[in-house]
Amino acid sequence: MKIARVLGSVVSTAKLDELNASRLLIVQETGPDGEELLDRPFVATDGVGAGTGELVLVARGSAARAAEGGERRPTDAHIVGILDSVDVGGVNVFRKS
Amino acid sequence: MKIARVLGSVVSTAKLDELNASRLLIVQETGPDGEELLDRPFVATDGVGAGTGELVLVARGSAARAAEGGERRPTDAHIVGILDSVDVGGVNVFRKS
Amino acid sequence: MKIARVLGSVVSTAKLDELNASRLLIVQETGPDGEELLDRPFVATDGVGAGTGELVLVARGSAARAAEGGERRPTDAHIVGILDSVDVGGVNVFRKS
Amino acid sequence: MKIARVLGSVVSTAKLDELNASRLLIVQETGPDGEELLDRPFVATDGVGAGTGELVLVARGSAARAAEGGERRPTDAHIVGILDSVDVGGVNVFRKS
Amino acid sequence: MKIARVLGSVVSTAKLDELNASRLLIVQETGPDGEELLDRPFVATDGVGAGTGELVLVARGSAARAAEGGERRPTDAHIVGILDSVDVGGVNVFRKS
Repeated sequence: MKIARVLGSVVSTAKLDELNASRLLIVQETGPDGEELLDRPFVATDGVGAGTGELVLVARGSAARAAEGGERRPTDAHIVGILDSVDVGGVNVFRKS
Repeated sequence: MKIARVLGSVVSTAKLDELNASRLLIVQETGPDGEELLDRPFVATDGVGAGTGELVLVARGSAARAAEGGERRPTDAHIVGILDSVDVGGVNVFRKS
Repeated sequence: MKIARVLGSVVSTAKLDELNASRLLIVQETGPDGEELLDRPFVATDGVGAGTGELVLVARGSAARAAEGGERRPTDAHIVGILDSVDVGGVNVFRKS
Repeated sequence: MKIARVLGSVVSTAKLDELNASRLLIVQETGPDGEELLDRPFVATDGVGAGTGELVLVARGSAARAAEGGERRPTDAHIVGILDSVDVGGVNVFRKS
Repeated sequence: MKIARVLGSVVSTAKLDELNASRLLIVQETGPDGEELLDRPFVATDGVGAGTGELVLVARGSAARAAEGGERRPTDAHIVGILDSVDVGGVNVFRKS
């Protein structure tokens, strides 16, 4: 999974029915400490009630539909967790404030 | 999912039967504001009646076949929504005109 | 899907049984007009009787096995159509001769 | 699969239920000798009790959910083995100490 | 599929049970003539009895598990054929010696 920050959201009225129940958030990969933004923003469905600015875990590919209820959701990126802390090499590099 | 712009279309007569019901559109990824075209154009099947010039949401991989009726469609990119607006950091960066 | 040109073919005698019925072609991505060859050649199974030099549509990932009869074929790239024409921005950029 | 080194771990309280039983480790791809760290760290679920500093094998994509019990786990990267040794060209380039 | 050369092998004792029956080989992508080594080596399971030095066809993603008996094997790269010859543009660029 990727560590990513929630940047914003998109609205789409004309969309597949299977997306109706999903919030569509814009996220961008970060390093483990959540500071630097990497690559390009992309759109992910939200499975955990994430808010703008939060550091999250994003599952890509078919993993985005693996959990209960996701089978028909046409998403290739799903927020599966909100990060509380990240440790690298025994050092805490991120803690949710 | 990727934010992309619809650039055009392709015609293929000799194709797998499972593609017969699908429009084949050429799309290209953009940034969140829909301005800059990024990477290379690719071909996506259309699930929402998107037209040339529109900003859309494209699901890639097996997500392209996840929604009702898509199981046998041999596509790895499917347009799953037409974008109305995009907000980044609390600022509206795209609104459909 | 990617737009690609058929460059040649490979022969493999010692292969999985599920590949026995498939022609194995070498293809390479092109731009929408079919001119410039991009990235690296790769091997795709052929679902439509494509010949060397033709411009084709290649589905990658699990889409390569989505159509009727493909479930057990261990391929990650499948030619799903032969292109007749490509239009970008209202202009015809490729037409099969 | 990728050869990777375990760098650390992440904690997420608000996450999908299907991730509750999984340790979430930060890993980073290495060359075959396990020395150089390549690309960016990412998060993988752990299937083999790997510890920080160990060289492991990471399966990505749907392979991360293929083994017994993994069907509903929304992960796109799973540690499937701890490496004991790596041989390249008849030369041992890594041995677990 | 990718054309790749077998470079060596890895040993992993602590691994998922579903990998017990699989040889784990290190492979690296090559051009169509099998000469230049490209990108980075990665680990693939072997479905055809490939040996070090041979030029092989590697299926990635879920294709690695598509053939008979592969459903639960947690691999994202599988050797599905040993190459005998490669033709590009009507010219033979590789023949197994």
